Amino acid sequence: MFKIPDHQVAGHVAGAGKLGPLVDDSGRFYKPLQDGQRGTEEVSFYESFSSNTQIPEKIRKFFPIFYGTKIMKASTGIEHPHIILQDLVSSRLSPSLMDIKIGARTWAPEASEEYITKCLKKDRESTSVSLGYRLSGLRVFIGDELGFYKPERDVMRKAGPDDVRLFLMKFVSSNLESESGSESKPDCSLVASVYGGDNGILSQLLELKAWFEDQTVYHFYACSLLFMFEKGLTSNPEVKLIDFAHVEEGKGVIDHNFLGGLCSLIKFISDILSDTNDLKNGLIEP
Amino acid sequence: MFKIPDHQVAGHVAGAGKLGPLVDDSGRFYKPLQDGQRGTEEVSFYESFSSNTQIPEKIRKFFPIFYGTKIMKASTGIEHPHIILQDLVSSRLSPSLMDIKIGARTWAPEASEEYITKCLKKDRESTSVSLGYRLSGLRVFIGDELGFYKPERDVMRKAGPDDVRLFLMKFVSSNLESESGSESKPDCSLVASVYGGDNGILSQLLELKAWFEDQTVYHFYACSLLFMFEKGLTSNPEVKLIDFAHVEEGKGVIDHNFLGGLCSLIKFISDILSDTNDLKNGLIEP
Repeated sequence: MFKIPDHQVAGHVAGAGKLGPLVDDSGRFYKPLQDGQRGTEEVSFYESFSSNTQIPEKIRKFFPIFYGTKIMKASTGIEHPHIILQDLVSSRLSPSLMDIKIGARTWAPEASEEYITKCLKKDRESTSVSLGYRLSGLRVFIGDELGFYKPERDVMRKAGPDDVRLFLMKFVSSNLESESGSESKPDCSLVASVYGGDNGILSQLLELKAWFEDQTVYHFYACSLLFMFEKGLTSNPEVKLIDFAHVEEGKGVIDHNFLGGLCSLIKFISDILSDTNDLKNGLIEP
Repeated sequence: MFKIPDHQVAGHVAGAGKLGPLVDDSGRFYKPLQDGQRGTEEVSFYESFSSNTQIPEKIRKFFPIFYGTKIMKASTGIEHPHIILQDLVSSRLSPSLMDIKIGARTWAPEASEEYITKCLKKDRESTSVSLGYRLSGLRVFIGDELGFYKPERDVMRKAGPDDVRLFLMKFVSSNLESESGSESKPDCSLVASVYGGDNGILSQLLELKAWFEDQTVYHFYACSLLFMFEKGLTSNPEVKLIDFAHVEEGKGVIDHNFLGGLCSLIKFISDILSDTNDLKNGLIEP
């Protein structure tokens, strides 16, 4: 009944003797509680968020539905506590996915010195500090026979600002080859239907931004945005927030760290949209 | 002809044998070039900014006018190069002033390790990391006889999030005592005329915010917002940006660090405005 998810792009992957998430065929996602504080903090967040009546419905839809916790046989074969969540991709056949960790800073001010040092190093080595976000995972569906374009984790980790812009363009392109080394210029043929439009990703990010300009309840450190869509007549693009092991109380202050990174990502996506338009209208050279 | 400015709230103060800014009676401010890279970088910024045709006029008004550089006798009595700027307070008799250093991070990614370590320590010890900004100076005019309310530098430096909120309230209050230890609750009697209204500080900050959501030319590290107003029939509140010794090229990326801090400050000021309104309308207890 439980199986390893087909569509994971980042995080721990379940395997022989390895702890990782499981899914069932009723659309639920079982995430093993992480060690120590992280696991309990993630459960605390879901409990607080799901019972918080001040969260507007139009914001709640950006978060996975929480169904509680359960001790069950994990992917390792051993009993382990799990968080039960909505499986965000269960209704999709071949989704293209991108996982973007938001914030120039992935550590809370209250974290331990050791943890801060470790995070700060990663934040400075990746694009977190420079762009306010970094890519954690990417998988673009090319076609039934060609499968997926999926750059190696190491390639993602070493990506600089220009690479990140290119990956954001590849996510909405059709001319990719499954070899991640491919150097063809992404055609951005899906940009209007995925990033653009009233229900597109940009529009959803702007809804989130408006909430982050005002909400002072939670600070989301090391939290990711998950972008999803499918090729076809209706790409049905969706944005979700995931990974809440480092959420802290906002204490009356907005999450300026998340908001800054979100605004930076919004600007990248707006630029890709307007460049593609200018290209189409002959305003810039290909 | 040159004298030490009356209305300085932060930064190096000129004195016997001490290098600091000077003003003249024609409304110009002479800022001694800082040592090494800082001084030259600040000049570079002013030269680049004043000749940049892409800066909208409504944004240019937030910056001091730049009149070039000059080697002249400094406050120490020794010849020293100075940046010549508009004296922002020359037309005001008894201005209330607040200097707010914007950004959770006051260091550029390209800075030296030694400098980053020093800044990071200050950012974590102050409210920079938690609020996305910190207060660097405050001076509130009380009356011709009582003079100014001006907390000690050390008090400002140690201010936590709640203290910062209180200082932002005191800035627009009339019931202060010149003793900075005074514990009376600030009355926020000037909040509507200084923070509120079409020409108020909040409205000016929102104009700046819109520019920061889009501009990718400059990243302003360790830069301050200066708030100014005068008691009287027209308080004429003004916001200016000052201190550009650590401005870097934006390279196509928005200044998410400045923008995040600016949004956090905007939320604090909006909260003070709406709390005062609620108090007036009896919606909350005094």
